[in-house]
Amino acid sequence: MDAISVHTYEDLKQFAYEVFLCIGCPEKDAKLASDVLLSADLRGVDSHGVARLSGYIRLWEAGRINPKPQIKRIHETPSTCTVDGDSGLGLVVAPRSMEIAIEKSTNVGTGWVAVQNSNHFGIAGYHSMMALEHDMIGWAMTNASPLVSPTHSKERMLGTNPISITFPTDKQPPMVIDMATTTTANGKLEILQRANKNAPVGWVQDEGGNLTQDAYAVKNGGSLLPLGGDRTRGGHKGYSLGSMVDILTSVLSGANYGPWAPPFVSFLEPKENPVGKGLGHFFGAMRVDAFRPADDFKKHMDNWIETFRNSTPTGEEKVLIPGDPERENAIIRRKEGIVLQEKVVEDLIKLSKTFSLKF
Amino acid sequence: MDAISVHTYEDLKQFAYEVFLCIGCPEKDAKLASDVLLSADLRGVDSHGVARLSGYIRLWEAGRINPKPQIKRIHETPSTCTVDGDSGLGLVVAPRSMEIAIEKSTNVGTGWVAVQNSNHFGIAGYHSMMALEHDMIGWAMTNASPLVSPTHSKERMLGTNPISITFPTDKQPPMVIDMATTTTANGKLEILQRANKNAPVGWVQDEGGNLTQDAYAVKNGGSLLPLGGDRTRGGHKGYSLGSMVDILTSVLSGANYGPWAPPFVSFLEPKENPVGKGLGHFFGAMRVDAFRPADDFKKHMDNWIETFRNSTPTGEEKVLIPGDPERENAIIRRKEGIVLQEKVVEDLIKLSKTFSLKF
Repeated sequence: MDAISVHTYEDLKQFAYEVFLCIGCPEKDAKLASDVLLSADLRGVDSHGVARLSGYIRLWEAGRINPKPQIKRIHETPSTCTVDGDSGLGLVVAPRSMEIAIEKSTNVGTGWVAVQNSNHFGIAGYHSMMALEHDMIGWAMTNASPLVSPTHSKERMLGTNPISITFPTDKQPPMVIDMATTTTANGKLEILQRANKNAPVGWVQDEGGNLTQDAYAVKNGGSLLPLGGDRTRGGHKGYSLGSMVDILTSVLSGANYGPWAPPFVSFLEPKENPVGKGLGHFFGAMRVDAFRPADDFKKHMDNWIETFRNSTPTGEEKVLIPGDPERENAIIRRKEGIVLQEKVVEDLIKLSKTFSLKF
Repeated sequence: MDAISVHTYEDLKQFAYEVFLCIGCPEKDAKLASDVLLSADLRGVDSHGVARLSGYIRLWEAGRINPKPQIKRIHETPSTCTVDGDSGLGLVVAPRSMEIAIEKSTNVGTGWVAVQNSNHFGIAGYHSMMALEHDMIGWAMTNASPLVSPTHSKERMLGTNPISITFPTDKQPPMVIDMATTTTANGKLEILQRANKNAPVGWVQDEGGNLTQDAYAVKNGGSLLPLGGDRTRGGHKGYSLGSMVDILTSVLSGANYGPWAPPFVSFLEPKENPVGKGLGHFFGAMRVDAFRPADDFKKHMDNWIETFRNSTPTGEEKVLIPGDPERENAIIRRKEGIVLQEKVVEDLIKLSKTFSLKF
């Protein structure tokens, strides 16, 4: 059992804010970045929250993150925009780009923004959810470090490439889809490693490309498998979805795609001979009332959610609506605090010493 | 082993064309519908080709397909449109709606069309591929008869809800993703039934909601599983994707969503108290040069495809690019003809008698 400690959301957010200030982020950016980062801890996506703070700082130390980026529109039409993130924190570049998508959507019904030259953007759901208060459907996708093999391949060619899409509702909480296009996440393998357990078949393959239950397979040169797992269980569809995200975020924007996607960890250098600039994202916003009156849509969304939630369960487990678990986490964690693993706390203490901050 | 016979693409298309004329379709519509229908047979998606012709005709006999629809734009912005298909053949309503998406994209960078009051539209890939010749990225999704259970539910709430997206290329063939959001298709279960074989775990559940290898499970009141299969292997992500398609195609357009989606088979009546009009689709077209010069994009797409195709395979099987198998099928079938199962031929002969046509 790992040692753990509990911290309030506000304390952790304040600490992240101060760290971002220390690396030279303008106040507004530091505020935004810490808000995005901590939204992951709040929603229970621990792998994308403060646990990553030291990783961002190491990338800054390696000169791969620009704390004062000039985020620029480099190509534009009434419904589209391509953004150069100027090597900024993805935590800042992403919400700024989503704002552009929302602006375009306000003007012509929908807005679509492809981003090059960015870095890891935290949880996709934060950005897509920005659309909700405007009665828009929000989209967010990002490229990520290559850890996933295409069907029938041994090589790591794709990231976990998440897709998030959010739908506004009336009285029900909004629907928030936020999913990697792989069967599982690296973080879940780490939990199995700590518990000395095997992985289910379909999660990973070994270095030779064989299906394995070894929870250390990815650490030892193997790969994560696309959603579905092997070919028989539809893994080629997960591979297709991961490819779609890779192309929309990176080929369309002029970022690095496939095996060229720059790794998040600072000890791995980006590939020589890059095919684009930095990491890529893709955002969308669609005004609901560009298709039908927003109230009609939102009332039918409520009906959708109530109908699905009340469908007959197979057993003890409730039938869930996408976003339910994360929303429930957020309610609990705001009240009871955020639980951190010992290793994460050690990392944060180290950061506090580096920057002479109180933790 | 089933009895089979071989027919040319042209003969089958001509026959479908004549049948559509006989039910009262205008010449132009009959031509389009037969082109869409036969593109499925050509690409090896036999379940969506002439095998379905008698199904469409039975829906017409039941008064659920209008052979002379007035397809109307009922809501519009510069980048969006909602279309009422007037109960027309989806095979006609879909490409006409995709034309609107392409027109909007030409004008403002992207175009998005939600469709209500339609019927089964054949293969999704036909419609998304219409974007390619315009150097656009094409999107097509459709709702379908409810056969799929959400994670932890016993009930059939969603269709196999396919997503298709196509990317233009330079010298390489275009990338064509066209996938159901389930682990497998009903057609693959029928193949197992004929061969007296079990289904892999993760394809289906029985009436009680238990995972089963029974290839007859869906016939006997069970359900198809979302891509991923059960919860452990990411089935909740497939459920999320199927939900996304249901909402974009049907809640957004004002069609029937979830369990209300009208069944394709004429012997099942649509639900009483519908929540919308007919079946729903969703289409998109994105001008590549609304993001970056089209030539740059297409050259990088070629590089993407070559890089992935040449990644080290795990064994004998080639590393495929989405769309490879269907394109290879089309080359072979144009030359060698289309193989039909005896049952399909019987159906077509019956049709030829009904309408006094030569088959």
